[in-house]
Amino acid sequence: MNFLEERIVKDGVVKEGNVLKVDSFLNHQMDIKLLDQMGAEFKRRFADKPINKILTIEASGIGIACIAAQHFDVPVVFAKKSQSINLDGEMYVAEVESFTHKCINHVIVAQKFLGPEDHVLIIDDFLANGCALQGLIQIVQSAGATVEGIGIAIEKGFQSGGRIIRNLGYQLESLAIVDGMDAETGRIDFRPQGEDVGGSEAENSGEKNECK
Amino acid sequence: MNFLEERIVKDGVVKEGNVLKVDSFLNHQMDIKLLDQMGAEFKRRFADKPINKILTIEASGIGIACIAAQHFDVPVVFAKKSQSINLDGEMYVAEVESFTHKCINHVIVAQKFLGPEDHVLIIDDFLANGCALQGLIQIVQSAGATVEGIGIAIEKGFQSGGRIIRNLGYQLESLAIVDGMDAETGRIDFRPQGEDVGGSEAENSGEKNECK
Repeated sequence: MNFLEERIVKDGVVKEGNVLKVDSFLNHQMDIKLLDQMGAEFKRRFADKPINKILTIEASGIGIACIAAQHFDVPVVFAKKSQSINLDGEMYVAEVESFTHKCINHVIVAQKFLGPEDHVLIIDDFLANGCALQGLIQIVQSAGATVEGIGIAIEKGFQSGGRIIRNLGYQLESLAIVDGMDAETGRIDFRPQGEDVGGSEAENSGEKNECK
Repeated sequence: MNFLEERIVKDGVVKEGNVLKVDSFLNHQMDIKLLDQMGAEFKRRFADKPINKILTIEASGIGIACIAAQHFDVPVVFAKKSQSINLDGEMYVAEVESFTHKCINHVIVAQKFLGPEDHVLIIDDFLANGCALQGLIQIVQSAGATVEGIGIAIEKGFQSGGRIIRNLGYQLESLAIVDGMDAETGRIDFRPQGEDVGGSEAENSGEKNECK
């Protein structure tokens, strides 16, 4: 297990309904030293990419992105989430239909902060069905910028988001991929890192994009 | 002028209605090196306080708080904002009536992340009427924890929040205090730092708490 997987086993809590609570160190209370280790690991995994900007989404991606940005020496832009749009200036807006919440959200970035010259690393805390992430990718593309990679803290490997994003050809690096959880025993199964992430039985399960 | 005031003059934009846009470096795109300078300055101003936790509020306080936390070597907790409450576990909830938006917001922190043993530095990007800040103070008090200080990037000195908080006896340190702005000329008047912040004419203007 790597440092993040170890921390998830130590302090994460598995709840009914495939919910993994990591609010004691990642997305309510934040262990800044852990975030710094994560930033160093993202830098190692994207060392060869000409990244000049990190893009994340409010709220829980912001801390991870800001600490990681110190390892890349680049600014951070965070996208805003809104159910209504109240535009001030020119904005990129991606409409994201949430399968889980049965509603439409807007992911918004001011146009002046993303352009064709930008080589973007997208960072977020969780990846499940990938709806918000697909909105961020759409925004980078609208700006004519380049997605150099995607760094995620925890991927729920049993949901379809990761596979869809990898199938689109993006370098997606999740520091921990949870393939299964058991709320009764608290067991968490991690996908071995460094192995081929495709070819699992899930790939043939007929899962489709859960965002639309 | 200090480093933040200089940056505000260089890249801030004054809009009609006393709006100061700093979204190119502080609360949409974030200059991480600037945030690091701010963190060092907060550490200098609160050097004698036994701070063991930083509390902020989503979303734009999070980046500033996380980078500052490296200077204090403490974890960050960010409060969640919600118009509805959907409690999972035991939460501290402060009800904040927004004078500006004519609505009630809830500021929420899980009880397990704040307790009587905590000595808290509250950090946020803006202070105007201080409603959200008063909610955070209320939550720290509910937890039996101690507010050791409050660090703000930009205070609108012509609104009442700063004076109310200082009158309550808290050590409030705002890195830049804007006493006036002119959208037509772009002029920004900063309150001189290090001078007595009380005793201004505003104190006698009969302004009251705009939150309730």
